[in-house]
Amino acid sequence: MTQPLASALKPIADTIRVLVMDAVQRANSGHPGMPMGMADVASLLWAKYLKFDPRHPQWPDRDRFILSAGHGSMLLYALLHLSGYDLPMEELQNFRQWGSRTPGHPEHGHTVGVETTTGPLGQGISNAVGFAMAEQWLAQKFNRPEFPMVDHRTFVIAGDGDLMEGISHEAAALAGHLGLSKLIVLYDDNGISIDGKTTLAFTEDVLARFAAYGWHAARADGHDVETVKAALDEALADEERPSLIACRTIIGFGSPNRAGTSKAHGEPLGEEEIRLTRENLGLPQEKFWTDPRAYELLGTAGTLGAAKHHAWSDLLAQYEAAYPELAAEFKRMMHGELPQGWEAAAMPEFGKPIATRAASGQVLNAFARVVPELLGGSADLTGSNKTDLKGEADVQKGHWDGRYLRFGVREHGMGAIMNGMALHGGIIPYGGTFLVFSDYMRPAVRLAALMEQQVIYVFTHDSIGLGEDGPTHQPIEQLAALRAIPNLVVLRPADAWETAVAWQTAIARRNGPTALALTRQNLPVLDRAVAQGAAKGGYVLADAANPQVILLGSGSEVQIALDAQKLLAEKGVSARVVSMPSWELFDAQPQDYRDSVLPPTVTARVAIEAGVTLGWQRYVGSDGAVIGIDHFGASAPFERIYAEFGLTPQAMVAAALEMVG
Amino acid sequence: MTQPLASALKPIADTIRVLVMDAVQRANSGHPGMPMGMADVASLLWAKYLKFDPRHPQWPDRDRFILSAGHGSMLLYALLHLSGYDLPMEELQNFRQWGSRTPGHPEHGHTVGVETTTGPLGQGISNAVGFAMAEQWLAQKFNRPEFPMVDHRTFVIAGDGDLMEGISHEAAALAGHLGLSKLIVLYDDNGISIDGKTTLAFTEDVLARFAAYGWHAARADGHDVETVKAALDEALADEERPSLIACRTIIGFGSPNRAGTSKAHGEPLGEEEIRLTRENLGLPQEKFWTDPRAYELLGTAGTLGAAKHHAWSDLLAQYEAAYPELAAEFKRMMHGELPQGWEAAAMPEFGKPIATRAASGQVLNAFARVVPELLGGSADLTGSNKTDLKGEADVQKGHWDGRYLRFGVREHGMGAIMNGMALHGGIIPYGGTFLVFSDYMRPAVRLAALMEQQVIYVFTHDSIGLGEDGPTHQPIEQLAALRAIPNLVVLRPADAWETAVAWQTAIARRNGPTALALTRQNLPVLDRAVAQGAAKGGYVLADAANPQVILLGSGSEVQIALDAQKLLAEKGVSARVVSMPSWELFDAQPQDYRDSVLPPTVTARVAIEAGVTLGWQRYVGSDGAVIGIDHFGASAPFERIYAEFGLTPQAMVAAALEMVG
Repeated sequence: MTQPLASALKPIADTIRVLVMDAVQRANSGHPGMPMGMADVASLLWAKYLKFDPRHPQWPDRDRFILSAGHGSMLLYALLHLSGYDLPMEELQNFRQWGSRTPGHPEHGHTVGVETTTGPLGQGISNAVGFAMAEQWLAQKFNRPEFPMVDHRTFVIAGDGDLMEGISHEAAALAGHLGLSKLIVLYDDNGISIDGKTTLAFTEDVLARFAAYGWHAARADGHDVETVKAALDEALADEERPSLIACRTIIGFGSPNRAGTSKAHGEPLGEEEIRLTRENLGLPQEKFWTDPRAYELLGTAGTLGAAKHHAWSDLLAQYEAAYPELAAEFKRMMHGELPQGWEAAAMPEFGKPIATRAASGQVLNAFARVVPELLGGSADLTGSNKTDLKGEADVQKGHWDGRYLRFGVREHGMGAIMNGMALHGGIIPYGGTFLVFSDYMRPAVRLAALMEQQVIYVFTHDSIGLGEDGPTHQPIEQLAALRAIPNLVVLRPADAWETAVAWQTAIARRNGPTALALTRQNLPVLDRAVAQGAAKGGYVLADAANPQVILLGSGSEVQIALDAQKLLAEKGVSARVVSMPSWELFDAQPQDYRDSVLPPTVTARVAIEAGVTLGWQRYVGSDGAVIGIDHFGASAPFERIYAEFGLTPQAMVAAALEMVG
Repeated sequence: MTQPLASALKPIADTIRVLVMDAVQRANSGHPGMPMGMADVASLLWAKYLKFDPRHPQWPDRDRFILSAGHGSMLLYALLHLSGYDLPMEELQNFRQWGSRTPGHPEHGHTVGVETTTGPLGQGISNAVGFAMAEQWLAQKFNRPEFPMVDHRTFVIAGDGDLMEGISHEAAALAGHLGLSKLIVLYDDNGISIDGKTTLAFTEDVLARFAAYGWHAARADGHDVETVKAALDEALADEERPSLIACRTIIGFGSPNRAGTSKAHGEPLGEEEIRLTRENLGLPQEKFWTDPRAYELLGTAGTLGAAKHHAWSDLLAQYEAAYPELAAEFKRMMHGELPQGWEAAAMPEFGKPIATRAASGQVLNAFARVVPELLGGSADLTGSNKTDLKGEADVQKGHWDGRYLRFGVREHGMGAIMNGMALHGGIIPYGGTFLVFSDYMRPAVRLAALMEQQVIYVFTHDSIGLGEDGPTHQPIEQLAALRAIPNLVVLRPADAWETAVAWQTAIARRNGPTALALTRQNLPVLDRAVAQGAAKGGYVLADAANPQVILLGSGSEVQIALDAQKLLAEKGVSARVVSMPSWELFDAQPQDYRDSVLPPTVTARVAIEAGVTLGWQRYVGSDGAVIGIDHFGASAPFERIYAEFGLTPQAMVAAALEMVG
């Protein structure tokens, strides 16, 4: 390293390396290699560039730091600790232990200062694109001359694995398209992955690839901070393009026998190698040793950040005076409060049969008029998903006053970008694709659920009811697979009014994602008042006196249950129809409500759903029957497929009669 | 177009356009735009380049044609029909109808000549990488001087959507790394996606991107076949790199009012526009009109292919004489027959507690010694997944004599590449990653199941048992989500011997994929003979006289059930332990077997599994209990997590006593 920046930062990097080695060793598990390799780059970034206020980690205008290479969590924990965040040394010493705030991979909401949960590769860098989009969009909406209320950067540390993952392609291509110049990725170009040298499998020209996306791409020596500084300054000066800086580093830097090898990546160095590393780095042989200058330097950065925060707060006060309504809206949105009275948004009128995707489009538009933080789009299926907002322009490079996002055919990227927007704050993101393609974005859906983020998925074409496109496009197992994800609410409304309830539920749900499953085909419209029962996940849609049998269904199959009810009545069998748009919401109801809908005494039950039967046994019980599709679909007009697959009122009647006959 | 190639090919392109327009119109659904735009390019490819024998569509040395843009299925159907494949005109006229051989998207196994099922974007081009890898690997294995038994190309037509999808990044990067020079992608660069112009979201420099992957990338005018020919010739001459030819085309070419717009993409043109298009193209106003010269030209190509096939068969006869053993092996592998006696492969000895992932590695090596078509690798988790073959080298560019694949951190690409290798024939592909990352490859797993392809997934770190890596890495819902996929067999063995049975089952299963879920942590070894019951999916592992309660479990939790059995015995309660490694295999057993394992009279049942409880109700019934994890995991040593989450023998005992107490 050259003087004086290098020597100024050395205490931080030294301290990070020690904390990382020792914490991983004490936990007897973890990843020392990346943090030790990127310690110099990270020290520079945090000490000299990152805008943060450690006492106010929620300050809306802070820079965001995303550790996409989440396995290097100790790097982040060390930085947070040294910078004065509420993460005491005992937490670092409890790395990866039950109840600690230092889990194996960084978890948002669990550890202060962790902007997003990372570890699954490619997610963090893609979240970051969402963060940067949120920043740009909110800046456009709220900034006024002399009032840059929203003006911060998104910095990322990403590794080889992040860039190999397909999701990084999707998100980076969109970032280039949109010219997200305040997004800066520091790529830990260490030439090592778990299996060995990256040359085993990863020989692309990363810089040329990112340049092809429209990024500014440059190189630096990750152990010569002057070169990193020069590259960062150049990146910050680029107002047209996002930047990627490939920092050539040595994984496990400092370790005499493991540096530069995959052995440094994912296991403790071992006591002896740690001793040798300390020796090699000229550091004391003292567990969890820290250099006081590291606290001092990062503390100074935090103090500087706090001063900026203070100035920002002063500016906010002036902003409130100059633009009282705008300022109130800004604070409301950034606090994650919904506008007062939003539930009373004027709903469309529904009467004629209508597909729930079409009803969804109308309901979305109705809510979007009163909930300005609703911002979304589709993965190139706008007309099919009905996700567009009437009269609103597209968000494009240089056109951040738009309100519709063109994600491109990038479902996975869309999912992660929505997570980033939700995490940034100020936005309730929604995104559409076909239900079958929820599979493409599943890792991002899981992370939204894990992070308890409000993200709304508009999954249309929700069954064989889509017809001719055939088995590749007909979801069969997707409803079950989504229901399996903890903390995801899946809603499959049976008509337009249930769709309105579903959207209201999704917008009201601040602590987790919601997936709407919507039909391509038209469905009759139910009674509006009755359909409000959908809010409880399951309700008695059409009752009969002393029901002998309960017919359950979700979405489009509720109509089949209603038809079956009539046929059974003709045969003198009284049947109750229960609409079950959401298992999760129903399961959250009190036992007495659930028993009132599904009385334990009525064990003759038939459920129907155009998907795998997996899981319905829970609601129909051992004596019940489930009519579903435990095989793939077929290409034909949908009425024919329903008939051929036996999803008919007659089949429900036959099953019911077998029980009560 | 310039003469004379253009005029020679025009009858084919004209006929394709008519068949496409008319079939889509008659079906009242479908995608005319891509086929009409790519008709010229496809005509050139099929008439002048593609090596095929329409009467022997399974000829192993045919060129593979992959329509990655599967929505343009009518292009492929028209080509197959005109070329003399068994796809009569009536089938084209029954496009997208029940029981036809012309479904909405091309389905392998359903329509002759369809090499892979496409439609979900990005899959076809990624399958193609697998096809090309299979070709290279088999060529290396079987070709001898003067005997190029394996010598064919893989041609792809891909669209903008394919290239936006992340999976195309993963597969293309690996193709460049491996230098798959016999892979040629014709990119339909029509500037239009569903939402409108691709400039809405897709402005990357595709050629520069592919060049960054190490591809040869070139441009052509898709309506000037001479330029396409020149580009193809150049691509074919490149023996170092895969090739991408961006063919600038006009979507819906010929349609006066819809060409060049997204309206041409995914709906019928309408009768009037079809009339105008015929007029515009100078073609007769006759439904399903065909130009006899189209049959003639493509028939000639087929005849030429048949002659090549004939010559190849002659060569095979000579090859059999010159290399009898090699030839026998070649025929066996290409016929998809397993080597005789493979089941008797010498198994390792198991005694000490061992993780099922480690047992899997040993069993895999044992089988691989006698099943040479087993070819696989890992998505950069070789040491963790235990997927390496001892003593075997890596497959690398110029080193196709290796037998281990370095997929890189590219789970989705790996999944699709394995599909391509299986579809090519001659290989049983396997690939490893962590179970939680099965989410990353789910669309490819679904397609393997839909196409009934033999692909083996080695999913290790199958529960919270992985410990400290925490919730991002701990699968919770993945087992349930995989079980939801039709025709996928999921196997979660309880010990080393069940693991051996699992591998044997997976290798024997020729008509669908198998997913193995394997532990990171050590497990005691069961009795070898008893563990053979795993082949039936569920079996009585440890019985008791007149069992009052049945304890069910899978994988590592079977040990908890065994412990609970002992505790219950101490309390005078007799319990049976049922190991349930595979629901699908168990469900396929005769009713009397299933009743013998789970007697309907014993309704007191407790199931345990370290994942969501979804679906277990089916086996425990209304009176039973399921002990699982319906929330995300945590970072800590695994024993602590099991205890904190209540996955303990004591919890099973308590649940059992509540029922029988």
